[in-house]
Amino acid sequence: MALFDKFEKLAQDRAALVQSGLNPFGTRIDEIFSPTEGRIGDFKVVLAGTNNYLGLTFDPESIKAAQLSLKHEGTGTTGSRMANGSYGSHMALEAELADFFQRRSAMVFSTGYLANLGVIGTLAGPGDLVLLDADCHASIYDACKLGGPEIIRFRHNDAADLERRMLRLGERARDVIIIVEGIYSMLGDQAPLKEIVDVKRRLGGYLLVDEAHSVGVLGAHGRGLAEELGVEADVDIVLGTFSKSLGAIGGFAVSHHPEMDLLRYASRPYIFTASPSPSSIASVRASLKTMRARPELREHLWSNARQLYKGLADLGYRLGPQASPVIPVMLGSPQEGVAFWQTLIEHGVYVNLVLPPASPGGQALVRCSVSAAHTPEQIDRIIRAFDELRPIFPAAVAGNQG
Amino acid sequence: MALFDKFEKLAQDRAALVQSGLNPFGTRIDEIFSPTEGRIGDFKVVLAGTNNYLGLTFDPESIKAAQLSLKHEGTGTTGSRMANGSYGSHMALEAELADFFQRRSAMVFSTGYLANLGVIGTLAGPGDLVLLDADCHASIYDACKLGGPEIIRFRHNDAADLERRMLRLGERARDVIIIVEGIYSMLGDQAPLKEIVDVKRRLGGYLLVDEAHSVGVLGAHGRGLAEELGVEADVDIVLGTFSKSLGAIGGFAVSHHPEMDLLRYASRPYIFTASPSPSSIASVRASLKTMRARPELREHLWSNARQLYKGLADLGYRLGPQASPVIPVMLGSPQEGVAFWQTLIEHGVYVNLVLPPASPGGQALVRCSVSAAHTPEQIDRIIRAFDELRPIFPAAVAGNQG
Repeated sequence: MALFDKFEKLAQDRAALVQSGLNPFGTRIDEIFSPTEGRIGDFKVVLAGTNNYLGLTFDPESIKAAQLSLKHEGTGTTGSRMANGSYGSHMALEAELADFFQRRSAMVFSTGYLANLGVIGTLAGPGDLVLLDADCHASIYDACKLGGPEIIRFRHNDAADLERRMLRLGERARDVIIIVEGIYSMLGDQAPLKEIVDVKRRLGGYLLVDEAHSVGVLGAHGRGLAEELGVEADVDIVLGTFSKSLGAIGGFAVSHHPEMDLLRYASRPYIFTASPSPSSIASVRASLKTMRARPELREHLWSNARQLYKGLADLGYRLGPQASPVIPVMLGSPQEGVAFWQTLIEHGVYVNLVLPPASPGGQALVRCSVSAAHTPEQIDRIIRAFDELRPIFPAAVAGNQG
Repeated sequence: MALFDKFEKLAQDRAALVQSGLNPFGTRIDEIFSPTEGRIGDFKVVLAGTNNYLGLTFDPESIKAAQLSLKHEGTGTTGSRMANGSYGSHMALEAELADFFQRRSAMVFSTGYLANLGVIGTLAGPGDLVLLDADCHASIYDACKLGGPEIIRFRHNDAADLERRMLRLGERARDVIIIVEGIYSMLGDQAPLKEIVDVKRRLGGYLLVDEAHSVGVLGAHGRGLAEELGVEADVDIVLGTFSKSLGAIGGFAVSHHPEMDLLRYASRPYIFTASPSPSSIASVRASLKTMRARPELREHLWSNARQLYKGLADLGYRLGPQASPVIPVMLGSPQEGVAFWQTLIEHGVYVNLVLPPASPGGQALVRCSVSAAHTPEQIDRIIRAFDELRPIFPAAVAGNQG
């Protein structure tokens, strides 16, 4: 068999879906004008498909900090965190993250995906047992594959199912690692973290929460779902990323266990990767400061999220279960999904297309995401574009209009 | 068992090794002054333990390009390559890499480790067979773990051993994936790529070469070992990084197979990671241009490498098998390795400490690496520091002085 043969079928399926027009599997953002505006081919679009929740990618302080860092620290460390790649600034960011999350230890990784691989894939090895929400992100599944623990999936957002599965484990339940997310990236829904913590309190185990989509978004200080629900003390490790609310690239883990630092000696995705560029670290430090100083960004984000959720619901679209910065719009076949996504760009709005199996129920969806940087007028423009698509895609709103 | 118990033994071993002085397992570069100078605690040091082979981390053009990109494109894309994270600049870099390597396809990843995971771990799945040099980098082993192929290791740099193992496979040999490196990161030695290509020509298989340490270092144009030895047409995929000669962070793969682009649909470390920050892309594009325009950087690098290799050999140190930008100095026990590394910093030189099992033969080594940005005076200073250490660590040169 030739080297690439196994990908032919997938490629043919994708090619059959995109017989004309823009390609959702290889979109090129030709120009970027602001956190919320760009150009794709001939179309100037409102960006409603990024993870730029606080709109900080163009924050003047973050840009200035990164530019200064380039001058003083150069374009890269050319070394791993374990060798010559831990500058004073990498360690200062770790201290600032520990302070922000009120935890004893913080570790910085080069991407969010690598943070999950480097923490979960190192903690959970052969003989260990991981219980994870069935809708957990690909990086969590890949981390388990790298580490090699036994995996038990429990039904999405179903603490009772988690409990049933743990009860069957007997004594073994005490040492399991439970993994859930603060906000799930596809449906925008939140983990029932109080109920999950309740199971953990009664049956044991360690709880890891990936707050990639919820840091900066939930909690009085923006520390995520665990803060929002008042259960931070019950979460052993919080995992997160710099490529969403914090507007850069990188990932992190924080914990109240001082022993988390031992991972630095054992975590291959930490040891064998170049460390984050000093300019990314500098912009994250500035963005973290801004996020802490300006809680109104979070209020604005939620006001935008509620405005968009209500607007799309009023139009008759089938949405995710709750208003959220991530709002999925349920569509039909993959063909309809692609056509809808293409037409939306022609109407001036960029969103993410998600096809089965990544989307649930065998149906395509488009995933809108909201930013604090969207103006109310931009949110209106997004709603108007969806309105304009109703006569073109009547099935998307069929039987659902009030 | 508590969550971190499995790391206690390792931590205790490390703590026992570092009872006083600087910690080689958590070095902090407090200040960075240039590609070749920094401060560690109280010691101003010449940096001889980076992967900054061409010294481009402080190249004014690269810094300016990154600073401009920050202004125009922001601090991050907040999206994956498959979604909103492919800007015009990401794709321009892919075209420039394809042009530089004279290949049809190029793919850019967020780190070099992720490039290996994303290419090898996707190409080689269950039922596939990978033959890899026993000294291949951790990222290649991790990629195989993620992908799940059967693995056969052949003896380091031994094409005859590769051939024997392939002969035993019969028909299956035609589809195997052979993986070697251009320059190995521990010993600084080069793969016998002509002999390996000869085996491939006779028995079949696909050849992947990780040129992380050899791009910018070997070949008339800096394309790596395959160019140096005139066997580029026989290499199916070249893997590389932006965090060594190119001075930033990120990774890439190039191939003459146009089908490599199909990996974009299937490669989870490509799809589920935030894309490189636009400013990293901008600095890499500038550094690639500089690397192409200034072959004298490569000459200077090799002149420094030969000067250091000869200087250390003349002092009686036991070195790697050939002059190279990576020069290992063989030491004794891990304790001696740590003490040597600490003392060298006190004498003004930073190198990398490598302990078993990462170092071969159960002995510690320190790994010197050279940059085109080192002045001859700095190379002399490195040699002088090693000279000053001879009376302190007589075993390091025992029986080896001319």
